[in-house]
Amino acid sequence: MQQERCSSSDRPLDPGGLLSCDAERSAARLGCAAVDFPVAVVLPAGGSGERMGLPTPKQFCTILNRPLISYTIQAFERLSWIVTVVVVVATENHDLMLNIARKYNHTKVKVVHGGTTRHRSIFNGLQAFSNTTDSLTPKPKVVIIHDAVRPFVEEDLLLKITLAAKEQGASGAIRPLVSTVIATTSEGYLDHSLERAKYRASEMPQGFLYDIIFQAYQQCSEFDFEFGTECLHLALQYCGTNAKLIEGPPTLWKVTYKRDLAAAEAIIKETLSMSACIIAGAGAEAVELAKMLQKNLNMMETDVISCAKESNTEYLSKTQNFIHISMSGSNFSGVPEMVKRFEDIGHTRLYPLVVVWVQLNMTKQSVDSQKTDELTAFMGLASEVIQGNVLLYGIEINHSKVIFLMSYHYIC
Amino acid sequence: MQQERCSSSDRPLDPGGLLSCDAERSAARLGCAAVDFPVAVVLPAGGSGERMGLPTPKQFCTILNRPLISYTIQAFERLSWIVTVVVVVATENHDLMLNIARKYNHTKVKVVHGGTTRHRSIFNGLQAFSNTTDSLTPKPKVVIIHDAVRPFVEEDLLLKITLAAKEQGASGAIRPLVSTVIATTSEGYLDHSLERAKYRASEMPQGFLYDIIFQAYQQCSEFDFEFGTECLHLALQYCGTNAKLIEGPPTLWKVTYKRDLAAAEAIIKETLSMSACIIAGAGAEAVELAKMLQKNLNMMETDVISCAKESNTEYLSKTQNFIHISMSGSNFSGVPEMVKRFEDIGHTRLYPLVVVWVQLNMTKQSVDSQKTDELTAFMGLASEVIQGNVLLYGIEINHSKVIFLMSYHYIC
Repeated sequence: MQQERCSSSDRPLDPGGLLSCDAERSAARLGCAAVDFPVAVVLPAGGSGERMGLPTPKQFCTILNRPLISYTIQAFERLSWIVTVVVVVATENHDLMLNIARKYNHTKVKVVHGGTTRHRSIFNGLQAFSNTTDSLTPKPKVVIIHDAVRPFVEEDLLLKITLAAKEQGASGAIRPLVSTVIATTSEGYLDHSLERAKYRASEMPQGFLYDIIFQAYQQCSEFDFEFGTECLHLALQYCGTNAKLIEGPPTLWKVTYKRDLAAAEAIIKETLSMSACIIAGAGAEAVELAKMLQKNLNMMETDVISCAKESNTEYLSKTQNFIHISMSGSNFSGVPEMVKRFEDIGHTRLYPLVVVWVQLNMTKQSVDSQKTDELTAFMGLASEVIQGNVLLYGIEINHSKVIFLMSYHYIC
Repeated sequence: MQQERCSSSDRPLDPGGLLSCDAERSAARLGCAAVDFPVAVVLPAGGSGERMGLPTPKQFCTILNRPLISYTIQAFERLSWIVTVVVVVATENHDLMLNIARKYNHTKVKVVHGGTTRHRSIFNGLQAFSNTTDSLTPKPKVVIIHDAVRPFVEEDLLLKITLAAKEQGASGAIRPLVSTVIATTSEGYLDHSLERAKYRASEMPQGFLYDIIFQAYQQCSEFDFEFGTECLHLALQYCGTNAKLIEGPPTLWKVTYKRDLAAAEAIIKETLSMSACIIAGAGAEAVELAKMLQKNLNMMETDVISCAKESNTEYLSKTQNFIHISMSGSNFSGVPEMVKRFEDIGHTRLYPLVVVWVQLNMTKQSVDSQKTDELTAFMGLASEVIQGNVLLYGIEINHSKVIFLMSYHYIC
């Protein structure tokens, strides 16, 4: 059965239904078996962010009021085939991390304490699975190691990394080198330069059979723990495992310097604008229109959800565009409530929220004076909410014609 | 004589006077001789920007409406000891580049055509000096090679590079590696990884004795021209010159991907806001106040210039803050004209312009009704110009008291 993006039935859909399609659909795209074994993630986040020159460690720097690490966690949590995300933080950031997990509803996260180096932190993260019968942290078959400060990781790549790790024992994302790499003499002169085409930059994510990487860490030396920077190297050196290298997209980059926060914000804003949440009210025609709209908006990432009050605000972190398709008798009645919910969260101060209220009017009759009052009220509401950076539009689709409503008062 | 930033006399200063202090003051800071030999720059800008995935080559992508390459050129042109900037562009971009040079008043620029690879383009650039008696392009002693897409290059580093090049024959900026570098097998597996601490990323700017790098290019092979990426390597291989390597700041980075444009914009906006242009009107007290203000604004980059109409707009590319100190008889009379000049250029649509009009009133008399009219007029003007994103403030300093004027109508 061909699957569209979770619009395969006439019932209004719940957000959960959205996610379970992902693995099968992506796997179908890759032409290989779905991930039918437990996969977990270890996110070392114990760094101090020295290179950024800011007092806040970079993983906790906020973008649009939300800590960078939360975006990274979300990139993993949205995939149904990832069971646990172990976040490794410095002890002094333990409570901060728990608060972040609570505030942004990171239900798959387990927080553990880090070590003095990245390797030590990762090993601590891996040990979260080895010595517990906690059902939240079942021992995974494959473990993905990533960085808290690489928020833009795509499902396609994660699948490739995971499946290659299961098959080869280890895998890692690579990127071409952007600068020539040179070796220096002890006095600070050029010794020799490397041929750029022969080498690659080792990035994240990396994937390992849990048993292999755990064994490698059990066997590696103090020098490795203290000075090592490469997990793939440990798997090779201590387990004889040759990692499969997979070319990744430019978006894998690590937020390292202050300018990277600006770049990340630009990307996040662009993602928010290039997506939409279509809310289908009760009624077969509303659902039908929602599905058609999704099909036609094929340049954007769209989710279709049912008209359930609580679920809307989850999507605020995924998109800034909401299209509400309503068939209820009294026009536009749900709008003030919806807008208020958004305003309460405060996102609208950081980027505009776009709400398109689509009213389906299937009755043949229309009472003109009542309609005029309603239109006026709607226009008034639009002029009001724009002060709070909510752009409200209305489309009324009568059984015979379409009316567009927009507020004409804008402040750029 | 101790030099302050060009405020060493009582005369109103001309912009030219600003620049000639730089080399001596910077050299004084470094404790070494000033640059008393001709230095030129070659900026290869012939690339197509494939990695950016945009139709426009990245060096011509605009930030705040201004092409990236223009910011880079300005970073060199503002230094008095740099004589010529040779910009090497693809033939189809020749006219575009000439237009940019004209529009942004890049008087030191010479445009030449590029080759099919970076090395070929650089060699073309170097040849601009070798076969002409054109006084614009005298043969330099030291030539700096940089990238059009690295706009944030500081004078300190350029001096170090230049002086090291004169002494050693070649020099280059380096940065620590951010990722582990690995070698791959032909089948795409990990072969070995390099110890990150033993290597560096070779960046720009690089400096060479002109004769050395020219000779290296004359002798290098077709393979070098076609596949080489490292000028320092050529100097080593063909002239036996060991380059002195100089650690550079994080801001040397190359705009490579689309996200880098956002990062560059953030940095440029921050620079514009952390600087000010103080315009001293005619009169000893105005100049005195300007100098005192400059001394007190020591957290910011400030320039003090005379009240010359044409010069103001040059500084629009350096700062968004203008402090005009006036002593003329009729208060605030120059304001509308000044604001209009700024609005005509159009910068104010991209970031707010801040104008602080300081009126020095040394007379003991004040005609109250006239003053009230003037204040009202000023407030009215402020309310008007804010629509065009100009934030206008007024400070009146009477011989006995200070009055602050601000418009209370703001739109965020």
